[in-house]
Amino acid sequence: MKGRIHNFNAGPAALPLPVLEEIQAELLSFRGSGMSITEVSHRSKWFDEVIEDAVARVRRLMKLPDSFRVVFLQGGASMQFCMIPMNLLPEGRTADYINTGTWATKAIKEARIQGKTIQVVASSEDKNFSYIPKNISFGADAAYVHLTSNNTIKGTQWASFPDTGGIPLISDMSSDILSRPFDPSPFGLIYAGAQKNLGPAGATLVIIRQDMLERVPEHLPTMLKYTTFVEKNSMFNTPPCFAIYTIQRVLKWLEETMGGLQNMAELNRQKADLLYQTIDRTGYYVGTTEKESRSVMNVTFRLPTEDLEKVFVQKALETGMGGLKGHRSVGGCRASIYNATPLEAVKALVDFMEEFARRHG
Amino acid sequence: MKGRIHNFNAGPAALPLPVLEEIQAELLSFRGSGMSITEVSHRSKWFDEVIEDAVARVRRLMKLPDSFRVVFLQGGASMQFCMIPMNLLPEGRTADYINTGTWATKAIKEARIQGKTIQVVASSEDKNFSYIPKNISFGADAAYVHLTSNNTIKGTQWASFPDTGGIPLISDMSSDILSRPFDPSPFGLIYAGAQKNLGPAGATLVIIRQDMLERVPEHLPTMLKYTTFVEKNSMFNTPPCFAIYTIQRVLKWLEETMGGLQNMAELNRQKADLLYQTIDRTGYYVGTTEKESRSVMNVTFRLPTEDLEKVFVQKALETGMGGLKGHRSVGGCRASIYNATPLEAVKALVDFMEEFARRHG
Repeated sequence: MKGRIHNFNAGPAALPLPVLEEIQAELLSFRGSGMSITEVSHRSKWFDEVIEDAVARVRRLMKLPDSFRVVFLQGGASMQFCMIPMNLLPEGRTADYINTGTWATKAIKEARIQGKTIQVVASSEDKNFSYIPKNISFGADAAYVHLTSNNTIKGTQWASFPDTGGIPLISDMSSDILSRPFDPSPFGLIYAGAQKNLGPAGATLVIIRQDMLERVPEHLPTMLKYTTFVEKNSMFNTPPCFAIYTIQRVLKWLEETMGGLQNMAELNRQKADLLYQTIDRTGYYVGTTEKESRSVMNVTFRLPTEDLEKVFVQKALETGMGGLKGHRSVGGCRASIYNATPLEAVKALVDFMEEFARRHG
Repeated sequence: MKGRIHNFNAGPAALPLPVLEEIQAELLSFRGSGMSITEVSHRSKWFDEVIEDAVARVRRLMKLPDSFRVVFLQGGASMQFCMIPMNLLPEGRTADYINTGTWATKAIKEARIQGKTIQVVASSEDKNFSYIPKNISFGADAAYVHLTSNNTIKGTQWASFPDTGGIPLISDMSSDILSRPFDPSPFGLIYAGAQKNLGPAGATLVIIRQDMLERVPEHLPTMLKYTTFVEKNSMFNTPPCFAIYTIQRVLKWLEETMGGLQNMAELNRQKADLLYQTIDRTGYYVGTTEKESRSVMNVTFRLPTEDLEKVFVQKALETGMGGLKGHRSVGGCRASIYNATPLEAVKALVDFMEEFARRHG
């Protein structure tokens, strides 16, 4: 669409244009209600349909067994860092954490702030988080194993999940949720801030297995208990309606237009391959991670100098491509290519990268 | 606008039509960014301008002294019920709570869940919360006094705030924030879920006095500390960008189109007077609260029978007026007339009420 750029932001990130157009068209009157979706009651038939459809689509897309519950919370992944040990790590037990970057480090910190006993059973900090650890030994009596499935800042991703021998996995999937199919059954809890692969900032998707709910202590504050959200279908109090509505439209697009997770995964792989092949082929760009740990969602790379990186980001913006600056904590460049990033955007970026390498190489 | 109804919802509630139209117009490309406001980074110049302007407008509209900080959180007022005692009621001290209805009761419950010592120093529960208590004695060493400035469900409102003799007031102003001017200086903390008088659901405005921050315990989870939000200007992690953006537009409308809080308060009073005068004049409708405790925001009333109430709500909807059913916990009828409800909507409702009383009286 005229006036739009190719958006490679890491989050908040690109949304599918057809979804934005649909939201725009019905913003003043939602489905004949005579009200905006931002103005209808969360206890109305209009919003009920939205949230129920969103939950049903998550279940179908991820092929969730009946033992899982799907809820929407607020506070982003950061609030989950605190709620997970508070709810699911009982007094006297320990949990295993794997440290693969900035967000995993924060999850570990929030468990320790509460005085919980946890073990960091694997870490890639020794090489600046440039790889995903292998051959991990888990504590036999760990209450759960926590990992970050995709590391937005460092550009690494778990290609497959470790076998924990039955210990429930808990994963922050903020930056690769619904980007590929996987078996959910080993997971006790999956969570994702919406603003990368799901919708706008302001809602957190939490998928929790029924048996985990038995661990929730009785006397926690109501808004900090997973049971509150499960028992009230995300509506103990007013949920973030607009964010959930947008997520529902994105899920519909993912299911009906993109054809589900297998198709989406193939397209995501195609987009990532285009970029990594360009990096490897030109020899001008340098990937920042080990090849087998490369993320399909966040492609991180360096140029020969920091000055050239600045020029690269600036020229890309002038050419209609935004969000290519690496995270402020690591520098370099990063192309985030979540579900909503179309293949044509990646092709345009690859063309630009090749041209830039020729001119400045 | 064609196709829109007069919206008397209690929350999520009506937004100013010019604000919705502005959001709609720039939904695909925010201020020449080539991205939707839902797609720009929260650390971009675009969003920075939005949140800084929102904070500045709150400060100006409420005439806040420099000692106050303005932040945006998530989780609604319900999360504040838990965070307030957690952050501001130190071990070994007590706090005073005034119980004027459903939400105050919940605030009290969340303090007690945490094992905090609190005193309910006044309550209107003896008369089904139909009045605002007077002549309250406060504990000499109370850490704060908590009250609900407007009771959305019961339809009562504090006309003025009690003199606590210097004990910091803490108030849930979810349903009357920015509806009238008042002196903020006796308040230690003011909070409001956005979805009534400020914007869409998904953001909570918190105004906190600097000296209160000294009470925040060091070892709370990061996302549950007020200091986190103050130190990071609401951006420790990704904030609810769309909700804050909409709030910023509503604040702009309130300041520039409506002319600020004094003008807004006069219009709100005019709207409420029209409705209460109709209730009192017809003798057909019965107000549910003591006259001097009547809310300017939520006008609650009964009809002669529950069957007639159903007919009233249904006929009103057919006439283009929605949201008039009372809260599911109390029944009856309720017209919520927040800032965004135009005078013409209230005039239409008054005409309808008079006609309905003639026909069914």
